Amino acid sequence: MKTLNDEMGRLAEEITERIGRFLPSEDGYQKTVAEAMKYSVLNGGKRVRPILMLLTYRALGGPAAEETSLVDPFLAAIEMIHSYSLVHDDLPAMDNDRFRRGKLTTHAKYGHAMGILAGDGLLNAAFEAALSAEESDNTRGRTIPALRVLAEKAGVYGMVGGQSVDVEKTGEPMTEQELDFVYRLKTGALLQASMQVGAVLAGADEKTVKEMGEIALRVGLAFQIQDDILDIASTTEALGKPVGSDEKNHKTTYVTLYGMRASKEAVENLSDEALTMLAKYPGGQRGEPLAELIASLVGRTV
Amino acid sequence: MKTLNDEMGRLAEEITERIGRFLPSEDGYQKTVAEAMKYSVLNGGKRVRPILMLLTYRALGGPAAEETSLVDPFLAAIEMIHSYSLVHDDLPAMDNDRFRRGKLTTHAKYGHAMGILAGDGLLNAAFEAALSAEESDNTRGRTIPALRVLAEKAGVYGMVGGQSVDVEKTGEPMTEQELDFVYRLKTGALLQASMQVGAVLAGADEKTVKEMGEIALRVGLAFQIQDDILDIASTTEALGKPVGSDEKNHKTTYVTLYGMRASKEAVENLSDEALTMLAKYPGGQRGEPLAELIASLVGRTV
Repeated sequence: MKTLNDEMGRLAEEITERIGRFLPSEDGYQKTVAEAMKYSVLNGGKRVRPILMLLTYRALGGPAAEETSLVDPFLAAIEMIHSYSLVHDDLPAMDNDRFRRGKLTTHAKYGHAMGILAGDGLLNAAFEAALSAEESDNTRGRTIPALRVLAEKAGVYGMVGGQSVDVEKTGEPMTEQELDFVYRLKTGALLQASMQVGAVLAGADEKTVKEMGEIALRVGLAFQIQDDILDIASTTEALGKPVGSDEKNHKTTYVTLYGMRASKEAVENLSDEALTMLAKYPGGQRGEPLAELIASLVGRTV
Repeated sequence: MKTLNDEMGRLAEEITERIGRFLPSEDGYQKTVAEAMKYSVLNGGKRVRPILMLLTYRALGGPAAEETSLVDPFLAAIEMIHSYSLVHDDLPAMDNDRFRRGKLTTHAKYGHAMGILAGDGLLNAAFEAALSAEESDNTRGRTIPALRVLAEKAGVYGMVGGQSVDVEKTGEPMTEQELDFVYRLKTGALLQASMQVGAVLAGADEKTVKEMGEIALRVGLAFQIQDDILDIASTTEALGKPVGSDEKNHKTTYVTLYGMRASKEAVENLSDEALTMLAKYPGGQRGEPLAELIASLVGRTV
């Protein structure tokens, strides 16, 4: 029997190949930055965001014929934006991480300046990729609305905004409101973009697009709180990174603010809400790939 | 009598106000990054790129009625991209500059991490701004082609590509081909985007858009070579930055490769070519604002 993990692994591989076509070619004088960009994207990630986008597109009845010409450019774009955020996050002036998933981070391998430029190049390339989307008579007029969602959720009212508060509050305690803001924007916004872009490209109405944003927000919060729980409850071996690092760094997390029991309840409530909201949609019944993916994201143990 | 400098000063002020509307509001938890973004854009720059875009739009007969709804978003976008490139360029890992135009650079004022994020926020905001462009029945279908030009010229096949070679070659001599590549991409590409976006928004045909790129390339090269000449020939006082800094840094420039006389000839030839090409267009005769701007850019003495 095929398990969900097998299926996700297969999808991640397929998507990695599909988005690889949008990376710049590694030749010409600028080949180093192109190499650094490729290195940053092809880092063994799980491709959660593009998978979420693709499954939302499918669940909402997006036409299969347009997947390559219309959707693939946006799958590449969301993953490039996620990748650039990790590259810049890892820089010495930010988190100063030399390793990610057991590999050197981009700046550790290519130097600080090239790390900055590879990140810039990836954010720019995300828009270049999405702008290469081709509409058919079936999907006329969906590119700009999808691009608007993507740009808004990646920017100062989205991921960059969340990131900036996280940076400012490093080493200081955060209030409940501040933590909620950071979780919504830093983690939640790109997941919202994933589902909402998928919905816009599928031709969903405004109400559905909005509701996909609400579902994604709950998934993002549950995912982030689960992270906080795992930082305390898991073993270093299972998690692949040191456990208890949040406590050591005096970091405000959902668990430090509300305790372990309330955190576990929050994960459960948020994921129940997300799945209930999703179940109203024909392609979003439990058992469908999108619902399975969401359940696995919020319910993971590593 | 009104001089060109007065007119450019007036236009720069007007454009600064027009693009200011696209900056994020400085409230909410993320207000620091919004402030840093505003600080980076409102830095007393001459607004060369948006002025060039606007005058190209006008010279090629772009409708006045659409200037606010269609063109302003792109004026903001090109200036935000230029600003973000300066912010990241000034970072300690890059040029490590603490002052620009007599003011603290963004990272010097807001910290390194916020400098990185303000730059990221500006690149993202550039696309948010451009995506807010509204088309009328007169200008239907121009936004995406204009965005494609903008994104291509700002990315790894444009500015970021030029920047990356400049960074890699720091402290080493460059060949003639490498220097040409850096000048074309690092300085030239955004000037090309300025004129080409103006042309696309004005509804120019493909041949005209291409030729505007050729003109802008010559303007960019002449501008850059003039910079190399001024680094040696000017006085520190007139230039507002130390002269002879290229020589001190053993930097390869057009003057070090070809000598002063050939450099002056190159500036003259390139600007003659640019103005001759421009003179073929009805709105591009000498005496018209666009031709005057170009003549002043390449012929400047400071």
